Amino acid sequence: MQIITLLTDFGLKDPYVGVMKGVILSINPDAAIVDITHNVSPQDIREGAFLIKEYCPYFQSGTIHVAVIDPTVGGERRPIAFCKDEHFFVGPDNGIFSHIIDANTDIYEIKNRDFMLKRISSTFHGRDIFAPVAAYLASGMYPSAFGPKIVNPVCLTDIFPDIINGVLTGEVVMFDRFGNAITNIDSEIFNDFTGRNSFKIHIGNMTFNSLNRSYYEQNFTCLINSSGYIEFGCYMGSFAKETGIKKKDIVKVELI
Amino acid sequence: MQIITLLTDFGLKDPYVGVMKGVILSINPDAAIVDITHNVSPQDIREGAFLIKEYCPYFQSGTIHVAVIDPTVGGERRPIAFCKDEHFFVGPDNGIFSHIIDANTDIYEIKNRDFMLKRISSTFHGRDIFAPVAAYLASGMYPSAFGPKIVNPVCLTDIFPDIINGVLTGEVVMFDRFGNAITNIDSEIFNDFTGRNSFKIHIGNMTFNSLNRSYYEQNFTCLINSSGYIEFGCYMGSFAKETGIKKKDIVKVELI
Amino acid sequence: MQIITLLTDFGLKDPYVGVMKGVILSINPDAAIVDITHNVSPQDIREGAFLIKEYCPYFQSGTIHVAVIDPTVGGERRPIAFCKDEHFFVGPDNGIFSHIIDANTDIYEIKNRDFMLKRISSTFHGRDIFAPVAAYLASGMYPSAFGPKIVNPVCLTDIFPDIINGVLTGEVVMFDRFGNAITNIDSEIFNDFTGRNSFKIHIGNMTFNSLNRSYYEQNFTCLINSSGYIEFGCYMGSFAKETGIKKKDIVKVELI
Repeated sequence: MQIITLLTDFGLKDPYVGVMKGVILSINPDAAIVDITHNVSPQDIREGAFLIKEYCPYFQSGTIHVAVIDPTVGGERRPIAFCKDEHFFVGPDNGIFSHIIDANTDIYEIKNRDFMLKRISSTFHGRDIFAPVAAYLASGMYPSAFGPKIVNPVCLTDIFPDIINGVLTGEVVMFDRFGNAITNIDSEIFNDFTGRNSFKIHIGNMTFNSLNRSYYEQNFTCLINSSGYIEFGCYMGSFAKETGIKKKDIVKVELI
Repeated sequence: MQIITLLTDFGLKDPYVGVMKGVILSINPDAAIVDITHNVSPQDIREGAFLIKEYCPYFQSGTIHVAVIDPTVGGERRPIAFCKDEHFFVGPDNGIFSHIIDANTDIYEIKNRDFMLKRISSTFHGRDIFAPVAAYLASGMYPSAFGPKIVNPVCLTDIFPDIINGVLTGEVVMFDRFGNAITNIDSEIFNDFTGRNSFKIHIGNMTFNSLNRSYYEQNFTCLINSSGYIEFGCYMGSFAKETGIKKKDIVKVELI
Repeated sequence: MQIITLLTDFGLKDPYVGVMKGVILSINPDAAIVDITHNVSPQDIREGAFLIKEYCPYFQSGTIHVAVIDPTVGGERRPIAFCKDEHFFVGPDNGIFSHIIDANTDIYEIKNRDFMLKRISSTFHGRDIFAPVAAYLASGMYPSAFGPKIVNPVCLTDIFPDIINGVLTGEVVMFDRFGNAITNIDSEIFNDFTGRNSFKIHIGNMTFNSLNRSYYEQNFTCLINSSGYIEFGCYMGSFAKETGIKKKDIVKVELI
């Protein structure tokens, strides 16, 4: 049994996700489909890109990950499929896989219409292209079956934290359901930067001098979250609502 | 393995959908359940009716479609089951299947209590009647097993677009997650009406002289959506919010 | 095939639930996972506790129920697993199972790290402890394999209705998607209390002298809902919005 994960910004109000599952199961009735989330902020490729690398490691080898945040569907952007570290990925070539692709990844453009629905719309490639390709991957096909190798996949370059004038500078990538603010500063970068030094973490007009371990320790917390990223929380409340901090707000770590 | 799709207005806050799945899997552990959406606007039979014909074609023959938008549950309205074009349908007889049923469809009232839960509540037939009946259909039973044939199923008559004084007149049926306004004017009716003539499409105080192909082509777009319906969108924004257009607002197509 | 149900307050915006499914399926690819809801009000243990006993009876023997409303994750609260009436339960020892546990239930603290992920975070035990334990239960293991028996599980004591000065007094536990107000007064307690007497039911400034059978019977309704609890509804509207009644508001039943 092959697992297919789905990440989209389609929401759960419309039948789009159900339709994709219908297409997948019509081609491969044995596929086990797992919804990651369909509530990525609409058209937010950066948020989707950030999430993908979070959940991948928790699935077994051979899993097929479909990611459809696709604001330019129907345009020039290419549909792609590839394999990385024994996981398969299917989606638009618009930067959504920026955290997965590296220089050695063989990326294939999906061009072979044998593996698409007969009628290809210009607005719903999730149904017409990505769902069937995922189903065929789950049936044992390889990405190279779908089309030619490409050499210049789109990769977002401004999604990583940076050290600017001696200050580790990142940003709020997203808020989770509880209103916790998740940053793009991971524990490895953080630990490399701080070493054994004391530090201050700044966000909005708040400053933290140490990391918490759990959300319940104090009213406002700053901790390494379960995925290894610096995250700000508010016990029994929403950090987003209490502070007014927004997505893309700057987070700075300085040594003292 | 038999697929059962679920369409309801139960939302995802309450355990209702999970309970229906428990009932189905207790009777038929091999059923593969696919959620279409549980966020149909509460008690909006028209919206549900519109959606059903959208996703059905993407499922394989033999699929069982359960649709529960059921504001008069517990009253006189009958529970029904039927087969149409090798798909099975289960739900209340309140118009929800208006786009599926035709004059030749054999509709059966579900009356045989052998195929219901032992205790039938007056408020949750999704659990007590429709879920078990779907599970038995997935086990190979036929709609005629559940009760007598009925001859006058409820069908909504005002859900189709019409030509009024030479103007093709439809309405906004629903908004999708992105705020796109989906109308009940499908491409076939539209093309039959416009032929090779020039046309104007009016919605609110906006007019479109041509159809777009993709959402990203301009700020406000009017296109045939992936399901074949006239739809209005707003690139990187919500058509609903930007324009104030509401469900049931009139859409007119006139020849020029 | 073993069923694992999931109840959390993780919401459907974040990949947390998808990650838990990845962990479960990596250990036990045959598990059938059923989402009950992930929209329990954030950190509302009482609401979660109330819901659990609602959906359990609709699942077959041997089902594994995972419930993660866990505001003090990472603290002293213990992870537990137990079997009750041929159903298995996994989650934090914080009162979430108050309606399930009785004096004869053998509760086991999950301590054996062989059945957890290798790296245990302090903020996401759903992924690191509860998901793998559920997967192992689905593979045939027993709760006693995970750790020592405990004798003092946390049970909430103020979640049941009471008779105060001759008045049956309960509260609004939650609102469902339609805005119906669900109370903690079940039909058994209600019937025992009222017997053959006339009664008045008070909520806010409204009084009901009888029970309705269905939502559509009148504008505001008071009925025994499909799970056997006193519930207040508003036909084609939201009782919550129309009345301003809030969670924890008092509901009184008096004999007349």
